[in-house]
Amino acid sequence: VGTTHPGDRGADGAPIIAVDCNGADLGPAEVAAGAALAAREGARVLLFGPAEEMRIQPASLTLPEGVEIVDAPVSIAKSADPASAVRTTPEASIVQAARAVAEGRAQALVCAGGTGAALAAGLFNIKRAKGIYRPALAIPLPMPNQPVTLLDVGANAEARREHLVQFAFMGAALANMVLEVERPRVGLLSNGKEAERGSRLILEAGEELTERAGRVAMEFVGNVEGGDVVGGVADVIVTDGLTGNIALKLMEGVSQTLLGAVRDAAMASARARLGGALLRPALREVRDELDPEEQGGAYLLGLRSLGVVPHGRFTRRGFARAILRAERGACEDLVGRTQIALEQAGALRERGGGPSSAQAASLPQAR
Amino acid sequence: VGTTHPGDRGADGAPIIAVDCNGADLGPAEVAAGAALAAREGARVLLFGPAEEMRIQPASLTLPEGVEIVDAPVSIAKSADPASAVRTTPEASIVQAARAVAEGRAQALVCAGGTGAALAAGLFNIKRAKGIYRPALAIPLPMPNQPVTLLDVGANAEARREHLVQFAFMGAALANMVLEVERPRVGLLSNGKEAERGSRLILEAGEELTERAGRVAMEFVGNVEGGDVVGGVADVIVTDGLTGNIALKLMEGVSQTLLGAVRDAAMASARARLGGALLRPALREVRDELDPEEQGGAYLLGLRSLGVVPHGRFTRRGFARAILRAERGACEDLVGRTQIALEQAGALRERGGGPSSAQAASLPQAR
Repeated sequence: VGTTHPGDRGADGAPIIAVDCNGADLGPAEVAAGAALAAREGARVLLFGPAEEMRIQPASLTLPEGVEIVDAPVSIAKSADPASAVRTTPEASIVQAARAVAEGRAQALVCAGGTGAALAAGLFNIKRAKGIYRPALAIPLPMPNQPVTLLDVGANAEARREHLVQFAFMGAALANMVLEVERPRVGLLSNGKEAERGSRLILEAGEELTERAGRVAMEFVGNVEGGDVVGGVADVIVTDGLTGNIALKLMEGVSQTLLGAVRDAAMASARARLGGALLRPALREVRDELDPEEQGGAYLLGLRSLGVVPHGRFTRRGFARAILRAERGACEDLVGRTQIALEQAGALRERGGGPSSAQAASLPQAR
Repeated sequence: VGTTHPGDRGADGAPIIAVDCNGADLGPAEVAAGAALAAREGARVLLFGPAEEMRIQPASLTLPEGVEIVDAPVSIAKSADPASAVRTTPEASIVQAARAVAEGRAQALVCAGGTGAALAAGLFNIKRAKGIYRPALAIPLPMPNQPVTLLDVGANAEARREHLVQFAFMGAALANMVLEVERPRVGLLSNGKEAERGSRLILEAGEELTERAGRVAMEFVGNVEGGDVVGGVADVIVTDGLTGNIALKLMEGVSQTLLGAVRDAAMASARARLGGALLRPALREVRDELDPEEQGGAYLLGLRSLGVVPHGRFTRRGFARAILRAERGACEDLVGRTQIALEQAGALRERGGGPSSAQAASLPQAR
């Protein structure tokens, strides 16, 4: 079942992860250092980036066995129009990395250069998996106990019923096979918990999910509200890319503003400064619990191979997590098993024709 | 201009505010105490609620001149279906209060019993203002410097281009006349700042606002992102009621979760407890700066008179603010001047017919 990755894997059959090193805030060497950390845990990595700049610091941490560098100095990570940059720059590191996956030289993609470039390079080279209407970006939000995976957070600005339905199964498969949630609870983001609340799009998607969810290993919990994103009532929360993107950036903004206000308060007086200093170790634990690097970044779902997009500001630890999560997705055959689940649920796009074939050419929205 | 409130105001011409006292967490007496505080600043109030339960504590704070009680013990504040409760319960306090406004015995509505009941009672009794497609719920989010008004936060689950356009002018008028922002900057919530980002709905609304905004005292700043809700780049942020409701509840959830985590951290050890105690006064200042009671609650815009919906958990101070803000809205003739602005901008709904006349009967979505 699901032999969607027939490429020439490592000699031992282990998957190889193609990693684009351009675009990270700390530079390509930090991504390479992450690859070295992942390789220590057995990952096999093909690095695309400027070989000259990828000498890992400290020098004692050399590239271990299993990591290979392909010199690809051209970066389109900062391009304002990633879709056209991908089309016109075949030598770009992200395009080369995506092509390595498309051609079977690697089995999953990791891209430090932003979701827009990853999405465009993935769509044009790796291409959509059979029966998938549209790829989606899923992000496991770090929570005190278990992450909550939100999707779509920006691959598409608009969604139709059948897209939301597929996102639900794609997100559940990710949560199950990569994030190790046994039977993911999936909710539909709406303006009230009751089944009759929401836009027509949400009501229709909810009806279809109620009917189809039981056929696979996922529990559809119905509508969830904005507050439930942090409430632990669902493992996967489905929404359109516009709302998901707004929600994600709003969460980041509110968190930063609040923590900034707490930090400022802890500078307001000598008394407050002392209090802040005493409280710091405990607050650091809170911060560590909510560490986004632990989850590896955003996941690009719906292509013929898995993509993982760590945040550009990650450190080597986060890049290592992204690579290991991508490897896990390839080992578990996430793509093949997602398609089987979609097929069992009757949610695959039918072959040929249909109103959605025009979307093959649709441009990615995320950046 | 704008003589939309011809009713019999107080003897001195001052507006009278109809206040539904049922539904507040602290009980009707707390709302009455808020009315007493507002009356001290000159407000004239008509209170609807259970007269028996409205004796203000402490007893020294008696109802001052300008406050009148109408015994209306029946509450539909906890109804699961406020629209049908409003239709079938004419004796309910919120319905009586809305009718007082509709009949000119009062000039604005304040309702402590939830947005769903206020919206339904307002739509059925006060009715939509001339040329308005749909009412909207606007909430001034407390921010360190100046509030950011988000609308719609749940009056409608779906929106069309012309609705978003009207929301922009309605929100700007509120910010200008009630929240005292001289020339409100208005943004459209999207998944990126660039004008070409967003759903078709957003792109179309953005084009129309770019064209129409210059005709009135507001600055259209274009698309804003989720993070900009707390970023101070706009005074008014426009979105559909589904996204606005999700955003609002998400903000509340993230804030509570984070502050809860900080509180827990400050209990983690003896050292942390001491730090927390020292930091407390400074943190209290942060909390006071972000106090939602200061803004009076949510604003129901688009009816023939202004409605204000303080949160049920408010104290007397918040209810007083809501009454004073409603009074200011009536004094400034917010409704009449909003319509003039919409007319100048060419954004009023044309008389009769049109595809939207069926919406007059649409049920409110918020609760």
